Amino acid sequence: MTAAFQAATAVRLLAADEGGRWRYRGEIAEGWDIGGVANGGYVLAMTARAMATAAGRPPVSITAHYLTPGRPGAVAIEVDAVRIGGRLATLTASLRQGEGGGDPEILRVMGIFGTFPADDAPLLTTAPPPDLPPFDDPDLPLRRMVPVMEHSGLPDRLDIRLRPGDEGFATGRPAGRPEVAGWFALADQQPGERLDAFGVLLAADAFYPPIFNSGLTPTTWVPTLQLTVHLRAEPVPGPLAARFRTDVALGGLLGEDGDLWDSAGRLVAQSRQLALMPR
Amino acid sequence: MTAAFQAATAVRLLAADEGGRWRYRGEIAEGWDIGGVANGGYVLAMTARAMATAAGRPPVSITAHYLTPGRPGAVAIEVDAVRIGGRLATLTASLRQGEGGGDPEILRVMGIFGTFPADDAPLLTTAPPPDLPPFDDPDLPLRRMVPVMEHSGLPDRLDIRLRPGDEGFATGRPAGRPEVAGWFALADQQPGERLDAFGVLLAADAFYPPIFNSGLTPTTWVPTLQLTVHLRAEPVPGPLAARFRTDVALGGLLGEDGDLWDSAGRLVAQSRQLALMPR
Repeated sequence: MTAAFQAATAVRLLAADEGGRWRYRGEIAEGWDIGGVANGGYVLAMTARAMATAAGRPPVSITAHYLTPGRPGAVAIEVDAVRIGGRLATLTASLRQGEGGGDPEILRVMGIFGTFPADDAPLLTTAPPPDLPPFDDPDLPLRRMVPVMEHSGLPDRLDIRLRPGDEGFATGRPAGRPEVAGWFALADQQPGERLDAFGVLLAADAFYPPIFNSGLTPTTWVPTLQLTVHLRAEPVPGPLAARFRTDVALGGLLGEDGDLWDSAGRLVAQSRQLALMPR
Repeated sequence: MTAAFQAATAVRLLAADEGGRWRYRGEIAEGWDIGGVANGGYVLAMTARAMATAAGRPPVSITAHYLTPGRPGAVAIEVDAVRIGGRLATLTASLRQGEGGGDPEILRVMGIFGTFPADDAPLLTTAPPPDLPPFDDPDLPLRRMVPVMEHSGLPDRLDIRLRPGDEGFATGRPAGRPEVAGWFALADQQPGERLDAFGVLLAADAFYPPIFNSGLTPTTWVPTLQLTVHLRAEPVPGPLAARFRTDVALGGLLGEDGDLWDSAGRLVAQSRQLALMPR
């Protein structure tokens, strides 16, 4: 992982109780925001890091419910054991602004942590990666993330290179289908540097919303209500290939399904979120 | 809903505390099991009913983590408010075998409850229902659910009518693709009777696992670890049309994505679960 992302998601253990409760302190850094609100993948990455540290194992499946917008500054993370088994550990966590106590809760999380036997040959995978030009191809459109809202720090942190044809939303010419694909890396990621599981969680919420390419809604903040990410493998070094789709938008809500592959073409994560329709 | 399913998922309020905690009593009925273990959709339906009663609104998004197998008998359900807003309420719940206290926890649940404006015309839906013969077509294969394990009560409760070509796994001739589609109803459901949101949650876990049609694993119990269901609309009366697919199976785990439509062809729910590979 890049040093900047490591530092921005670092957590420090304050206390571990007998009953399976851990308290951590973190800090929402400046510059991981959309219009002042910390990105949902970023705050999830920090919370998951605390949970994984408590569990002593990496995340396998994680679900976050977004409660109030996160802002830069100190945060308190409380992690509770639900069931600690030999192979799998189930934990919950709560991320609060400030020193904890009565401060607003940003995020409530539930997750499974564990280590599974590495399968070099998956039994089954029917989700092939999108057909993308090489990451270094100079003809790739939008070689860096473009801001979709003013006063957003997140675009400067990310290096998202879209699949040709998927960039139209950025200039008011959406592709007309609710899908967006491309490469995802951190802006300061060096060749040979790896995105770890927490970087994968960032990617699951920090990519462009596919609804932007539908042309049906404004191109602005899409507030996440709920996000589940299943992590399938540790990425090899390099950028991730990502594809996000919206299948359903109705009643003020939309869904967003994401698949993420490492640069070797291995599926590393699948995400699904429920979000409020942008307005 | 059918009277049998209503009775089998009924909950009774024992106490409501000031701080947003409710305690309910329920009973896991006989006969909703696979090989003695209560079906995951059934215990989720009961838990969600307690949460929806506490919230005073129906489920919108619900995530369950399965911790220990549920068995027939009394259960204690504790519901906690996370954030009660004007439109949305976020709650957690825990289902325990027995009278509560130190008894084994079966299920930990987190969910969003609320009412969204009915959209007769969805902004977007790109998930068309599977092409199924009419529910009453006498040529539909497997007109009732077939047991995949001995001593299972669940098959007698359900009326699952598979899409022609998807029934091969039941006779040792799997279709060779990890997908299964068909109609879902309760065995005692009368024409014109409706499956409510809790019946939709049952369907999300009680349909045949699509991995059965892959031919890659034994046709036996597929233990659910984690299940998320997003509910998109209240079904009209009649059976549900369902399609389940497994996209990924590796490292001892498999995913399962489900889409459910009502008999008018409206998408009513999307589910995704992480399960242990059957052995």
